[in-house]
Amino acid sequence: MERMKQMSTLEQQINFLKEIDRLKSVVRQSPLLDQSRKENSAEHSWHLAMYALILNDYASGTVNTNRVIQMLLLHDIVEIDVGDFPIHGGSSHEVQAEQEASAARRIFGLLPAEQGNNLLDLWQEFELAETEDAQFAKAIDRFQPLLINIFTGGGTWTESGVSLDQVFSRYGPVIKRGAPLLWTVCEKWVSQHFSGQAPRASDSA
Amino acid sequence: MERMKQMSTLEQQINFLKEIDRLKSVVRQSPLLDQSRKENSAEHSWHLAMYALILNDYASGTVNTNRVIQMLLLHDIVEIDVGDFPIHGGSSHEVQAEQEASAARRIFGLLPAEQGNNLLDLWQEFELAETEDAQFAKAIDRFQPLLINIFTGGGTWTESGVSLDQVFSRYGPVIKRGAPLLWTVCEKWVSQHFSGQAPRASDSA
Repeated sequence: MERMKQMSTLEQQINFLKEIDRLKSVVRQSPLLDQSRKENSAEHSWHLAMYALILNDYASGTVNTNRVIQMLLLHDIVEIDVGDFPIHGGSSHEVQAEQEASAARRIFGLLPAEQGNNLLDLWQEFELAETEDAQFAKAIDRFQPLLINIFTGGGTWTESGVSLDQVFSRYGPVIKRGAPLLWTVCEKWVSQHFSGQAPRASDSA
Repeated sequence: MERMKQMSTLEQQINFLKEIDRLKSVVRQSPLLDQSRKENSAEHSWHLAMYALILNDYASGTVNTNRVIQMLLLHDIVEIDVGDFPIHGGSSHEVQAEQEASAARRIFGLLPAEQGNNLLDLWQEFELAETEDAQFAKAIDRFQPLLINIFTGGGTWTESGVSLDQVFSRYGPVIKRGAPLLWTVCEKWVSQHFSGQAPRASDSA
């Protein structure tokens, strides 16, 4: 009987793991650094988890890196249902939030109840951005695409005609709140970019 | 001075994070579940981390799920230099191990020394597969591609003319050692597959 129950639990878990395979087909606005194609949300999530692992010393508060990694691994799973809302797309924040919450309930709802609720809680914590873990995770989620734009000579900023002021207002507060030192570096790179100089990693020194 | 040092550290970390972007261009043998294209090693690593998060109850020993997740996030980074060695490719294990160790030293060596050494240790622990964490991580790394083959009607087994016995010997010991209950399910699915029945997730119940 115990084994029967465990098997039914496994069935739900495997259905969830199969479903999230679809995140590999959600294409983002940002390119790979070699500009061979656009990045997808699954590999983006992997890269963010590595960013959090490597850069946890720059968090403004005391963070639990492993919780931050878990948040970043699952933060975009809702895009399976609703797609990626680009930061420069001008979509309604309220509509987006409602659609994503509904997607989170459906997708995490595929799991056994307790496990699904735990992950839903973690996803909601990320969205609310009130804890230090979530604020650092949010900062990383803004920092990585900014870096891509810097190192590909403009990326989505050039495509969408984004100005220096818009970069500062759309990325600044979130990165500064969760990882202030990273933002001081970004400010320098962004200013250099918009003044026509090509920033390099060594400019952080 | 302290700040200068911190900035130089950040420069090394960003160079590492830029370098590993290339893992998104390493193409594996396995397809996505919708068979639209082959999987790459970055999104594969993301998926394995999610497998470990969801399936940690099936580990044979007492594992630290967060360490397992970290291992799986970085276990394939060496493929940036040496590519993916397919399980059914018949390549020399010794040559592969040497090339991968050299790649690990180069890539983790981009990081500040202490951080790079810690990640190199974690990568070596995975490779050696002596700890319970590493054995569970290895089991997950075999289980996910097996599942892809099952749910795409054969996948790399069909392409490479792999037999039932070969599947049992190439996947069985590793999955059984790290996650015995998952292997009992695999045995059933694999047997069904090779007898011409199409396994479904509900067959785990």
